[in-house]
Parts: sequence; C-alpha cells; structure tokens
Amino acid sequence: MKFSSKILKCGLSPMRKFHPYAVAAEKKGRKIYHLNIGQPDIETPKAFFDAVKHFEQPVLAYAASPGVPEYIDAVREYYGKLNIPLENGDILATTGGSEALEMVLACILDDGDEILIPEPFYPNYNTFVKVTGASIRPIPTTAEEGYHYADREKIEPLINEHTRAIMVTNPGNPTGVVLSRDEMRMIVDVAKAHNLFVIGDEVYREFVYAGQPLASLAEFDDAAENVVVVDSVSKRFSACGARIGVLVSRNKDLMAQAMKWCQGRLCSATLDQVGAAALYSVGPDYFAKVREEYKLRRDTVMRKLADIPGVVCKCPEGAFYIMAKLPVDDAETFQTWLLEEFEDHGDTVMFAPGEGFYSTPGKGRDEIRIAYVLKQADLERAMDLLALGIQAYNARK
Amino acid sequence: MKFSSKILKCGLSPMRKFHPYAVAAEKKGRKIYHLNIGQPDIETPKAFFDAVKHFEQPVLAYAASPGVPEYIDAVREYYGKLNIPLENGDILATTGGSEALEMVLACILDDGDEILIPEPFYPNYNTFVKVTGASIRPIPTTAEEGYHYADREKIEPLINEHTRAIMVTNPGNPTGVVLSRDEMRMIVDVAKAHNLFVIGDEVYREFVYAGQPLASLAEFDDAAENVVVVDSVSKRFSACGARIGVLVSRNKDLMAQAMKWCQGRLCSATLDQVGAAALYSVGPDYFAKVREEYKLRRDTVMRKLADIPGVVCKCPEGAFYIMAKLPVDDAETFQTWLLEEFEDHGDTVMFAPGEGFYSTPGKGRDEIRIAYVLKQADLERAMDLLALGIQAYNARK
Repeated sequence: MKFSSKILKCGLSPMRKFHPYAVAAEKKGRKIYHLNIGQPDIETPKAFFDAVKHFEQPVLAYAASPGVPEYIDAVREYYGKLNIPLENGDILATTGGSEALEMVLACILDDGDEILIPEPFYPNYNTFVKVTGASIRPIPTTAEEGYHYADREKIEPLINEHTRAIMVTNPGNPTGVVLSRDEMRMIVDVAKAHNLFVIGDEVYREFVYAGQPLASLAEFDDAAENVVVVDSVSKRFSACGARIGVLVSRNKDLMAQAMKWCQGRLCSATLDQVGAAALYSVGPDYFAKVREEYKLRRDTVMRKLADIPGVVCKCPEGAFYIMAKLPVDDAETFQTWLLEEFEDHGDTVMFAPGEGFYSTPGKGRDEIRIAYVLKQADLERAMDLLALGIQAYNARK
Repeated sequence: MKFSSKILKCGLSPMRKFHPYAVAAEKKGRKIYHLNIGQPDIETPKAFFDAVKHFEQPVLAYAASPGVPEYIDAVREYYGKLNIPLENGDILATTGGSEALEMVLACILDDGDEILIPEPFYPNYNTFVKVTGASIRPIPTTAEEGYHYADREKIEPLINEHTRAIMVTNPGNPTGVVLSRDEMRMIVDVAKAHNLFVIGDEVYREFVYAGQPLASLAEFDDAAENVVVVDSVSKRFSACGARIGVLVSRNKDLMAQAMKWCQGRLCSATLDQVGAAALYSVGPDYFAKVREEYKLRRDTVMRKLADIPGVVCKCPEGAFYIMAKLPVDDAETFQTWLLEEFEDHGDTVMFAPGEGFYSTPGKGRDEIRIAYVLKQADLERAMDLLALGIQAYNARK
C-alpha cells in the first residue's frame, strides 16, 4: 500500500526529534532546563475555567460550524478595539491557529503553487503547505541583520507565476521580529500589486516590548480582499490546550470556500469555545503584566547571550523567542552532546536547533531558537548552562 | 486571486442547505420537527463534566500530539474488551472522527486516486476526499435491497489501478446498514487481495438493535496492515461537541505518516481529552438503556413509514438513521414546499433530502434520511407531519 506523495514530503517536528535523548538523560538523573518549547508557563486566566465549569447544558452538542456565537462576538469586539471593523461572517472559529492555517492554505494552494515565507519560519508551516501539494519559497534573512525580511527588493524578485501568497508570522516565531506599520504597508502593497493573498499569523500580537501599538495586517482597509489573519487564544491567554483559534478575512469569496472546510469537519470544540469567549473579558492589565514579565525574561536572555563570545544575536522586539547564531559547528550535534555527555551539577539544557526552521538545505545549522518561557531564576541557570556547554563542547577531544 | 482546484470541487453541507428556509418558516411562527440532524438528544454522561470540572492544572497546556495518555489508555482498554489487542502506538487522538478521516485520507490519497465507498454515504466524505485531489467511486445500492452493499461481485469490479482504499460506515450513516461478521470478513479479504487499505468509520458501533455483538474491522488480525478504524466519543457517549475521536491502526507505517499530521497541528483539545477518558468509565448499563431507547424510536419510525402508501424502506439494524424512498417527484422540492407552504396546526417537519448522500448524479432524488433523535411523542408527530405532507404535496395544484 502506498502513501500519498504529499504526506511523504512532510516530516516530523524538528522540535520533538530530541525527545528520546531527553528521556535518556532524565533516566540518568539529569535535570533538563527547557528552552526548546513554546509552551508558556503563565497561568491561564480563571475566566476560562469558570466559564467551562458553569456550562450547564445536559447535552454537549455540536457547535455551529462557523463557531459559537459568543466566541465570534468576542473576537469581533476585540478587533473592533483595534479599529478593525469586522462582521461576524469575517470570522471563523478554528481548532487552534493550526486549523486556521490548514484551512486557508487548503483553500488557496494547489499542486505546484508557491508561497513566500521569511526564513527561518515555524516548522509546522512545512506540513500545512506540503499537504496541499504546494511548496514554500523562503525569503532569506541573516542573523547578522536580525532576521529582517521586510524589504521590497528582497521579496518582489521571488514572486513568479506560481506564487499565490505571502505569509508572515508577526511578531515572529522563531525570530521575534516585529514589523513596523510601514513594513506591513509595504508587504500589503506587494501583495496587492501582484494579486496575492497575504496571510498574517498574528498569534503573538500582544507580545511586543518596544511600546508598539497592537498591530494587524487586517488594518489595511484597501487590502481587505488580500489579507487573511490567523489568530488564537493559545499564546494570548496562555491557553494552548484549548485549541481555539480563528480565521479572519474580509474576502467573502475566501470565507465561502473556507466554510466548506468548516462544515466538513462540523465544528471546533464547544466547551473550549465557551471558555475562549470568556478569555476575551480579560483586560489590558493582564497583558501589561504578562508583557512586563516576558520583557524581563527577554532581557535576561539577551544579557546572558552578550556574555558568550562568538554569539550573533540582535535583540528581538516580540513573541517569546530569540534566534541566535552560536560558535558551534552544528547545533544538532551540540544538542545531542548536551543531553548525552554534558552536565553541570547534574543539570543540562535544551533548545531548538535552527536547521528545522529553514527550508534552504544547510541553513541554520549553527543557530538555535531559545523560548524564554521559564521563570527568571531558571532562565538564568539555563543560560549559564548554555554558556558552560558551548565552552566545554568546543574544548572537547 | 485563485482558489485551489480541490476546494472548488468541494461543496457546502447538503444538510445545511435548507437552514434559511427553516429560519423563514420559524419567523412565520411555524414549529419545525427536526428529523434532519444527527445530534443525539441523549444526555452526555456526567463523568465528562465531572472530569472537566476537576481539572486543576493552572496552565491549560498543549497535550502530547498523539493524545492525552489517560485517553489513549481508555481507548486501548475499550478495544481490549472487544478482544482487539492494541498498543498505545496504534491509537492517535483526533479532533473528532472528522479529523481522523482527514488524517488517514491525507496519508493515503493522491491526485487521481480513487476510494470505494458504498453509496449513499455521509456527505462530508466528499470534502475529506476531494481536498486530497482523489475521488470517490461509489458502490451502488438500492432502497429496494435495503442499501445492501456487502457483495463481492458488486465491489471487486470497481477496483482499478487507481483504487487505494475501501471505506465503509458501519453501522451505516445514512442507511443504518449493519455488516455481518462474514460481510466484514469478505470486505477485508477484498482489501487484502488487492492490496488496499480498508477504512471502517465505526462511530455508531454501539447502536445495533438485532442483538449483534459489538464489531470492528480491527478484529481481523491477519489484516492488521490493511485495516484503519475511525472512532469517536461523539455518538457513543452523546458528546458531539467534545470533538474527540481516534484513529486506530496496527499498520505502523501508516501511523508514522499520520504522526506527521498530528505533530503539525500540535494536539487535540486537552480538557476534552480528559473528559473523553472519563466517558470510557461508563458501563454497559448506559449503552443498554440508550440502545433500547433508540430501538423504540426506530420501530416508531418504521411503523409510521409502513402506513404511508408508496414508501420503500427496509428496517435498518443500526445507527440512528433510516433512509427511505418517498412517493414524491423530488425530495428537495418537497422539503422546500414543507417549509414554505405546508403546515398542520402550525407545525412542519424537516428531514435530509437524499441527493446529497450520493455522488452519482441524479440518484437519491426521491429519497430522504430520517434521523430518529427525537423523543417518542415528537417522533410520532414528526412522522404524522411527513405523512400529511406527502399527501398534501401530491394533491396540490
């Protein structure tokens, strides 16, 4: 029996590749500091659990395919506060931002099509794109330039007759790059000029540390036909396990196509949508506190990285990741070594090796992604372990 | 901007087509008896809500991609009781049976491939198959033969070099057809002989009314490489809104491919998996009671159908649907007329017109699917309305 050519092109998550080594290290009694995962440690607001606990319907029934009305209303009101006027029909509830990505890419990509994505990018984009039969054309960046990609001269020459869309994660995962309003405008203009969709994966919107206002590609009224926004409660409210996201677009034709997918899979989880609606009652105080906490963590990581000779890294302005070039020959070999050979007082450290974030072969080999989702003390220790590890790794044999 | 050729081939749910007419009828004050939807009215076991309410982790984190361990364990133990020995690795938690279908079809179907499915079939199979670029080759049946399809002479000639799988819903939606063990054996043998996957959508497994033992295609140890089972808590425990299902196969290569999809979308909802695990603590008494209730309802519908001249319908043995041929020219026109023109003491009735369950053009036009998910008194009234409606419809002009 054969498997589809598309699934065969997909791979396993590069982040999970080192799991067996970690299990083995833990068996040896090692304590592992995890800088490798994007699972926030911030508490999920009580509003979610309260709403779920007060659900009193005796039958846990299907929700409407486009979503539970109070959740759609909550999302619409949230965008209203960003001065983005949406109608309920511009919003489809999805099973995480992940399903919103699957859905929009299935609607617009065909075999042989291309989508432009700045590289390094969130590795699961590979799966979502490849199952459609299309491929990613990466917009190249460098660690030295802080992974900056919003440059018309960089983007436009990559567009060809197969290009269907430009997709950006803003703020960026894994780079933390935050687009300025002018850069967003430029990308939207390029999309308009070439008749492309522009997909903004904006699940880290609240996580900006330089005082930027909350931004969305959906702000540009003149590009309402081009713009698609993917959003989620996962990172915003530290509710990853709810698997509730949203697909937003004012392109009615696109939403009509997406509705076919929505009806096909019936609906997203009813109870989680009820909880997600309640999360939107959480006010700006919550975000201010969370933002302050992450900013401190980012600063800790940057301060520690600055002390490691040979590291290349510019301070990112958003999300909760830092991508850095290390003075090692190969970050995957280094990670394996850290788990198999290294320890300092019984401790070691994990990060996400960079290669999995690139589609260009060989790129990112000496880079890593650090997720700063640990409390300060743990983060300090993790970064010390990284520094000690680099030193010992390069001094070995 | 173009849409993908695949999504353009998909359609909206035929069940939802009449929603605007229903809304208009309700505005006129009509009471509608719904025989059109597969949403059970049976209460969700308290175990689900109790488990959800007792979830005490402060962070609603991602679950493991293959599923929450206690849910996987519960599913494994459930199959163990059916004498089907599974390992945890043979089970992947999915977002409803729907995602299990999306996942397995994405793994095995390519552009131009074919999958055999008895017709009439669950309409959303169209979407899941078409987004892969493959197509459905229907195994034809007739109302007169009770939609019986398990006939080697019927199935084998439809297999060609493009065929990748046979998929059956057992017990059947929309037909209620239940396969005997010999029929299951025959289908598995055909799949083995032609090196095909055989996918059993077995979400209605508990709903059998002729004293059959609970059955699964996974029983056939010699076909472990061929068999894939799609299952869910939706119908079994009247928990459709949980969106928790499972993909089951002992084909390790298939499960390795499916894992790519699983990791790509990260996980299914954490809390719903915890609730779903608890549902499996519900014992056989629960099912006996539910089964008895549905059997009574089925018998009511059959008794009422027998009183309508010109109806063709054999008594189905499972699920909670009855497919029937009506003495009307066109069931869609009839349904529209019932909503726009008909009423009896202010009441009317909805069913699912049959055409949407067929992929062969023109078939099923005088057929309907009745979902018997109403309490006895309502069901009696609904069937009376159907009888009155047919009489009035055929006597009009």
